[in-house]
Amino acid sequence: GHRIVQGAEIFDKTTLVTDEVIDKIDELRELAPVHNHPHALALRACKKVIPANVPQVVVFDTAFHQTMPERAYMFGLPYEDYEKYHVRKYGFHGTSHRFVTSALAKAMGKDIKDLKIVSCHLGNGSSITAVKGGKSIDTSMGFTPLDGVVMGTRTGSVDPSAVTFVAQKHGFSPAEMSDYMNKKSGFLGLSGISSDNREISAAAKEGDKKSLLVCDMLTYEIKKYIGAYTAAMGGLDAVIFTGGIGENDAPTREISCSDMEFFGIKIDKEINNATKGKLQKISTSDSKVEVWVVPTNEELLIARDTLALISENH
Amino acid sequence: GHRIVQGAEIFDKTTLVTDEVIDKIDELRELAPVHNHPHALALRACKKVIPANVPQVVVFDTAFHQTMPERAYMFGLPYEDYEKYHVRKYGFHGTSHRFVTSALAKAMGKDIKDLKIVSCHLGNGSSITAVKGGKSIDTSMGFTPLDGVVMGTRTGSVDPSAVTFVAQKHGFSPAEMSDYMNKKSGFLGLSGISSDNREISAAAKEGDKKSLLVCDMLTYEIKKYIGAYTAAMGGLDAVIFTGGIGENDAPTREISCSDMEFFGIKIDKEINNATKGKLQKISTSDSKVEVWVVPTNEELLIARDTLALISENH
Repeated sequence: GHRIVQGAEIFDKTTLVTDEVIDKIDELRELAPVHNHPHALALRACKKVIPANVPQVVVFDTAFHQTMPERAYMFGLPYEDYEKYHVRKYGFHGTSHRFVTSALAKAMGKDIKDLKIVSCHLGNGSSITAVKGGKSIDTSMGFTPLDGVVMGTRTGSVDPSAVTFVAQKHGFSPAEMSDYMNKKSGFLGLSGISSDNREISAAAKEGDKKSLLVCDMLTYEIKKYIGAYTAAMGGLDAVIFTGGIGENDAPTREISCSDMEFFGIKIDKEINNATKGKLQKISTSDSKVEVWVVPTNEELLIARDTLALISENH
Repeated sequence: GHRIVQGAEIFDKTTLVTDEVIDKIDELRELAPVHNHPHALALRACKKVIPANVPQVVVFDTAFHQTMPERAYMFGLPYEDYEKYHVRKYGFHGTSHRFVTSALAKAMGKDIKDLKIVSCHLGNGSSITAVKGGKSIDTSMGFTPLDGVVMGTRTGSVDPSAVTFVAQKHGFSPAEMSDYMNKKSGFLGLSGISSDNREISAAAKEGDKKSLLVCDMLTYEIKKYIGAYTAAMGGLDAVIFTGGIGENDAPTREISCSDMEFFGIKIDKEINNATKGKLQKISTSDSKVEVWVVPTNEELLIARDTLALISENH
């Protein structure tokens, strides 16, 4: 079982590795320059050393989001940029969102088909997904894993006109601007201290204003995504926090969910503060919307997918 | 009374024209290249021909949004871009949002201080604002009037990585890319038909798929902003539709507000369909959130502001 970042519109599910599949993954290199070509190289190397009768499987970070409707994945750019250059929202962290939403349905004792869930995967990279009836209908990461909420070194959403303005000011080429937004921005660029949420939180506690701003921005953006995706799904049953920050940082969870009584969200502060890296409901018993911490386990899901696909085919 | 597009962080209210004020408006030309320098030229010309004892006043499109908290107006770019180049969210259409929210409070017979309003100004340019207690706390347009929902020729929000990718593909300079996103995108670029919502709606009715996509995208994005801003305000009392599309296009209003019972929004379809360009409540009598069409009148507000400021100073 291999994890692949970008499957674009070609791969909407876990797939058996063939030479043709490896070539297709390699062809998508332009859409994920840092990941797909190395993936293809690794897959070819594995095919050489692993006996041909041992099946291999690829699981795509984007596949879970292929159920998004056109209105959610298209940008307001000219249509030709979609047709010629495949510019659209793909979404990422699909393996994680699929794993935690399925685990949550089980924990709640409900059929995932009946649930409207906002799944917040918050880590060094963060994405928030609207999962309705077990399907991704919208997600905060976009064409690449840059869009959405503010991240460790990534900007998250930025007015597109600020992108061209800043590129011009710095005299950056598109590739340099992309690098700047991916590697020098976010928590690191705003705080000047660190890309690590733990260090930012510590500095914020000591009163560092820029670190406080980072915490404020992140929790405010999460809150707005919960609202937006509730509107997109026409309701809300549960919110999930997962990933390094989501599983371990109680204040981020508490602040994101504060003043959300309108949505039927009430956090049990005591339980929330005591929860770190384990499956736990953190909303009050009278909260209409259930809020849960669900540890993600992408490796387990990849193993499960691999087993399922191999059993099917053998 | 003159309307000025960009007042940045210098002007947070309507101001009497002096030579110093004109110079400051001119200095902001870099943040609004198409508007502020011509504004300054016009103001200097007016000062020459209008007798010195006739006071003149400038009303800023950005001033109403100067109440936004830092968490709402900062991007995830490095802090230096804010300090050196003033890159942040400013918001626009402030005169319109201020006028319609104040008119709505009057129509509802309520004190604006007690209201949480999502104000949707939808026209060739569109912006959506969260107005809590009469103050703008967040808005969809950003550093320039490009960000937010999809517009006549403007993209609205785009993953920042798609901006650099598309610029590279087309070999565009930052200025050319900005032009492309401002003038060749949106309804026009997606549909290939027109930048005018009336023509897009007509084509959509005849089954043109790209025009249907445009209508789908616009209404879906409006819906998500209503959700996001409800979360940002911690509640929702009213939604306003104004501007060319907002005042006249009943289907856009109906679809944006459909499946929003979770938010307490219910549209009276009959009343909505009969409403065009007039002050009218279009929600049902049992809708918890009131939805209104409120015709905007920026000229009237500029005149009122001018009168108020002149009376104060004379």
